[in-house]
Amino acid sequence: MRIIVDAMGGDHAPDEIVRGALLAKKEYGFEIVLVGDEERIRPLVGSEDVTVIHASDAVTMEDDPTTVLRAKKDASMFVALRALANGEGDAVVSAGNTGALLVGATMLVKRIRGIRRAALALTMPTATGKCMLVDCGANVECTPAYLQQFALMGSYYAERVLKIENPRVALLNNGTEDHKGRELERETNALLKETQKNYIGNLEAREVVMGGADVVVTDGFTGNVLLKTVEGAGLFFAGMIKGMFKKNLLTKLSALAVKSGIMELKSKMDYNETGGTPLMGLSRAVIKAHGSSKAVSMKNAIRIAAEYVNTGIIADITRDIAKLTVEGEE
Amino acid sequence: MRIIVDAMGGDHAPDEIVRGALLAKKEYGFEIVLVGDEERIRPLVGSEDVTVIHASDAVTMEDDPTTVLRAKKDASMFVALRALANGEGDAVVSAGNTGALLVGATMLVKRIRGIRRAALALTMPTATGKCMLVDCGANVECTPAYLQQFALMGSYYAERVLKIENPRVALLNNGTEDHKGRELERETNALLKETQKNYIGNLEAREVVMGGADVVVTDGFTGNVLLKTVEGAGLFFAGMIKGMFKKNLLTKLSALAVKSGIMELKSKMDYNETGGTPLMGLSRAVIKAHGSSKAVSMKNAIRIAAEYVNTGIIADITRDIAKLTVEGEE
Repeated sequence: MRIIVDAMGGDHAPDEIVRGALLAKKEYGFEIVLVGDEERIRPLVGSEDVTVIHASDAVTMEDDPTTVLRAKKDASMFVALRALANGEGDAVVSAGNTGALLVGATMLVKRIRGIRRAALALTMPTATGKCMLVDCGANVECTPAYLQQFALMGSYYAERVLKIENPRVALLNNGTEDHKGRELERETNALLKETQKNYIGNLEAREVVMGGADVVVTDGFTGNVLLKTVEGAGLFFAGMIKGMFKKNLLTKLSALAVKSGIMELKSKMDYNETGGTPLMGLSRAVIKAHGSSKAVSMKNAIRIAAEYVNTGIIADITRDIAKLTVEGEE
Repeated sequence: MRIIVDAMGGDHAPDEIVRGALLAKKEYGFEIVLVGDEERIRPLVGSEDVTVIHASDAVTMEDDPTTVLRAKKDASMFVALRALANGEGDAVVSAGNTGALLVGATMLVKRIRGIRRAALALTMPTATGKCMLVDCGANVECTPAYLQQFALMGSYYAERVLKIENPRVALLNNGTEDHKGRELERETNALLKETQKNYIGNLEAREVVMGGADVVVTDGFTGNVLLKTVEGAGLFFAGMIKGMFKKNLLTKLSALAVKSGIMELKSKMDYNETGGTPLMGLSRAVIKAHGSSKAVSMKNAIRIAAEYVNTGIIADITRDIAKLTVEGEE
């Protein structure tokens, strides 16, 4: 397994990214290719046996995803994606600008034939376990046909990577009845009823968080709102709980008693533990790590990249999507 | 102040609804008009001096909002709205089907001249206080012009009812930059920059929950997702905290120490404490109480209805909207 890492992407690049890559090398024995500013990367690598590909530029969070590929064609992210397209590795992992990664991967690595849009499939903690949210930010405007494909791809991921047997697929909606939602939801619901295995219908956001489905399909705008709301609510509650325990000596002592519980709660909500999320629908494995990734979460993202490659999902989607695509349209 | 109450709306109708109305009468001295099945309501009222208007039918949560006004024209909700339109009271409060209330109020009570859509403006708890979310469920498909009006109406409400001076108005988006969002957000952001007082720009859902704005504008589909996600996250965390304290004797004892903190947290997240939320943009006061309202939350919703009437918001919106509306279009 040979993983190409965008060493310049994310809030803590390159230091934490390189450290994470070296952790993955040590723990899983993967070959590592680091892409980025060689002068900054070499000292971080030391005597470790990794390949470094120099890239003179880097995509920042402020760059406009739609134009940055032309403006910064030698950015580490794009050099990494080209290396993947050329077969110099099995997967790319980047903690950089999500939109730029989507555009770059779509242009340089290409989608699976028949796939209309690559989607970001994030694993979200729920009250009963976890669920896949597809799309959670890549495509802000979607059609029913996109969402139909997201359902198929998310279902494979839940089955193969999260090891959920017969994952329950639902459509995020503002009610469960068939007439609920925008035109997008009404049409998608009808489409999924016909085509998607284990489709359980419309699901409200509240039930999503409570664990009502294993795969939740939505457009990238709404998915982003759901995800960021859960993140915000996590911070909100964590702050309240902190305040609750800080009141006096007695409450401080009780904090000690439930310490393990608090740690558990924290780890459940910690996105760094999850690590990475694949851009599904591409012809090769491209994994987005969280922008605030530190070493451990980069290591986890790299492990997820390898798992994604090993499951053979890409081949399965390639085969199945041909059946879904209506003759003559693409 | 004379409040017309839909006695048959909500999960706990008519018992809790009537009890709540009687509480409001006692506590605030309002005149109460109860609308619904007289045979069921009379025994609940006892010797109290309230007006009862008989209605032979009731809207249920399962009724389709778009057709129920024709199908059940004698439902308590619609009888109440007609009474309001006829000047038989100052406000209607209903815990019934939101969509039906919106359609019914729009048809029977009418919008303020120039207002394109009535919107549901909910007060949501945040890390630093509360914020108004408009629209949080009434209009699933919106235009920039609708959202522009939601901003204006929400801003008035935050100022007059929540008593927030110079409320900060933001647009819910998947990022802060101008290029973020769907066409709806990009156009609305440009429009609000030009016209809305104290407009602070795009805001991500995470920052909304953390208290980044006092008024958050979005379409009713996305608003519903945000709101229901916060609700779900609240239940999710409450469950985890419960589990945390239930582990052993020591953790159970510490639960006692932080009991007041837990109660505070619970009350902050409890929608029953908030009570009711106005359908803004109508020519008269129509207040939606939470579907699961019990007596105390109905009482609060009735108090909110009176406050809404007293602030004179409707007159202000009527005046200001004329300035916003472009000549020749409506």
